Amino acid sequence: MDIKEKALELHKEWNGKIETISKSPVKTREDLALAYTPGVAEPCKVIAEHPEAAYEYTMKANTVAVVSDGSAVLGLGNIGALAAMPVMEGKAVLFKEFGNVNAVPICLDTQDTEEIIRTVVHIAPAFGGINLEDISAPRCFEIEERLKKLLDIPVFHDDQHGTAIVVLAGIINSLKIVNKKKEDCRVVINGAGSAGIAIAKLLQTYGFRNIVLCDKYGILSKISCQNPVQLAMSQSTNPENLTGTLADALKGADIFVGVSAPNIVTPQMVSSMAKDSILFAMANPVPEIMPDAAKAAGARIVGTGRSDFPNQVNNVVAFPGIFKGALEGGAKEITEEMKLAAANAIAGLVTEDQLSDTYILPEAFHPTVAEVVSAAVKNCIKKN
Amino acid sequence: MDIKEKALELHKEWNGKIETISKSPVKTREDLALAYTPGVAEPCKVIAEHPEAAYEYTMKANTVAVVSDGSAVLGLGNIGALAAMPVMEGKAVLFKEFGNVNAVPICLDTQDTEEIIRTVVHIAPAFGGINLEDISAPRCFEIEERLKKLLDIPVFHDDQHGTAIVVLAGIINSLKIVNKKKEDCRVVINGAGSAGIAIAKLLQTYGFRNIVLCDKYGILSKISCQNPVQLAMSQSTNPENLTGTLADALKGADIFVGVSAPNIVTPQMVSSMAKDSILFAMANPVPEIMPDAAKAAGARIVGTGRSDFPNQVNNVVAFPGIFKGALEGGAKEITEEMKLAAANAIAGLVTEDQLSDTYILPEAFHPTVAEVVSAAVKNCIKKN
Repeated sequence: MDIKEKALELHKEWNGKIETISKSPVKTREDLALAYTPGVAEPCKVIAEHPEAAYEYTMKANTVAVVSDGSAVLGLGNIGALAAMPVMEGKAVLFKEFGNVNAVPICLDTQDTEEIIRTVVHIAPAFGGINLEDISAPRCFEIEERLKKLLDIPVFHDDQHGTAIVVLAGIINSLKIVNKKKEDCRVVINGAGSAGIAIAKLLQTYGFRNIVLCDKYGILSKISCQNPVQLAMSQSTNPENLTGTLADALKGADIFVGVSAPNIVTPQMVSSMAKDSILFAMANPVPEIMPDAAKAAGARIVGTGRSDFPNQVNNVVAFPGIFKGALEGGAKEITEEMKLAAANAIAGLVTEDQLSDTYILPEAFHPTVAEVVSAAVKNCIKKN
Repeated sequence: MDIKEKALELHKEWNGKIETISKSPVKTREDLALAYTPGVAEPCKVIAEHPEAAYEYTMKANTVAVVSDGSAVLGLGNIGALAAMPVMEGKAVLFKEFGNVNAVPICLDTQDTEEIIRTVVHIAPAFGGINLEDISAPRCFEIEERLKKLLDIPVFHDDQHGTAIVVLAGIINSLKIVNKKKEDCRVVINGAGSAGIAIAKLLQTYGFRNIVLCDKYGILSKISCQNPVQLAMSQSTNPENLTGTLADALKGADIFVGVSAPNIVTPQMVSSMAKDSILFAMANPVPEIMPDAAKAAGARIVGTGRSDFPNQVNNVVAFPGIFKGALEGGAKEITEEMKLAAANAIAGLVTEDQLSDTYILPEAFHPTVAEVVSAAVKNCIKKN
């Protein structure tokens, strides 16, 4: 049986990958009186007077809503709320298994920006954090920004920031190997959707000065931008409004980050890059260029989104620990500082001994990654 | 330590009474590939084509949202969404422990009828049912009615229907004891909020012809109605617009149902009722009249909302089994027929041998009540 058939069969057997269980016993009358009426009135009264006490007495302390509108699910596109459920349940599974964070899938029967914002605000009281997932660009930018302002709990669009954090971690370690400085590197990012934009921003924050953002029309310039977020990014990365193809952009570049489409990087393009070039070809399931082809064309380090090649860029090393740290530390938001701290923490898990062209990132099952990322994130909260 | 202190301490220890756990293991790369990408795409694709498959492949099959706006929580009143959380988590605990139904507390940061309706519609895809809880009257009537029309999953306001079902079960068994027929009984219901109205309606559906609904101003008549729902009920129960006090109404009455306020029924009122009178005095924690006082004044059967007196009217014998049956049977709504079936099933759990003035309802911990109620509810689905 291949993986597709097996996955389908197992999903039927699970009949829902997430289950709610009770932490309070209700086997006796006294149990009932303590967990429910009349005893339950006591924590209610305390919270009514001191809202912060919700973090002491309720699941808000350690529960995240995994919110999607089903508009950009995996490589499947706009399949809607109901069909997105298996993915959101899967995400909830990862939150629990990797970060010991409780997570509830919330799939929304609307793709209207205002309705999504309103709905998330309304359901926020029960949750300690909001993980936005698989919401298409450019709506995802506004939804996240507005929710961050409206809510006093962390809001995090994993497709953007989770990916950006892990890519940055991979680049930090790659630069150690090739012995280049971030200030001297030119980075080409192909794909100007949610992930591409977020990667560009985080790399800027980290200190990269020379970033070229491309999309299917080539280098992103004033004329080719599709939305205000792209426009802002193109103004900051390409103030002189240079134009050109991806091939033009890659000539002499040190780093390529692809969050775009299969097979769009040719061996010739890789050969045109600077010495010791670094490629993250993360289109799924078929990367922008296959690792062996990239290597043959002269690339030094190649990462993909796939687990069957070395250097997998996998968000699961980031988001469980980030929310774990944010919740445990009582963070009101995920700051840029936390994202950088998480990237550094992830990079730091690969020791000098281990670090090599084919081992730049900790694996998904690294035993302490969530703990280490969580501690790094919490440390930022203390400093604030 | 008294129960209040102990409840507070335990709630702090639990730090949330509900936990989400994974039913799918993720210990190996293969596990990940099956529960998450790439395997998870398969159930997504099937659901995108056949929405009903969500019941096979996702938690929608067996998960209820416990939705409240915190406007009428227990006896605490309008304490808001956050402070309502311990109660909603408690309800979720009961769903799981008594009915093996997964339940997620959703406390809404709005008390606007339209916003509540919109929010619940938007979050519905993840859930197989909506249990409305502790939403104040008269908004609860409109919210439930509108949601029932808008959604294709069961919507059930437990404060209304759960209470009505258990009261009806208690009355069914009480009438066996006193050997009266429903057609011959006059029922006085005091309290014209969500529970009182729902009880009146269900008793009418069951076949009671003579019901008098009172509120704090006395017998509900055209002039004293506070909202359209009360007006409709007063027209159907009191077409001649009789007026009078609760004391007037109780003269010669066979059954009293109180969902109102402490100590408002006097021994004199009880004495004025018909022979073999039946009282359900469910104000909490202090009933409309204490059972011993009612008995001394001539009442035959007395029930309350409390577990420390005989004949507790406790919704927990109803809602877990009702949703269990509705979910297992794939019901699109909870019908009047299902409510009657549930009441009959609950009543039927007290055998002829057991039935007595002080044992008219199965206890909360009755071992088979959820199973029996669920079967009765499912049976209605088959017949539809």
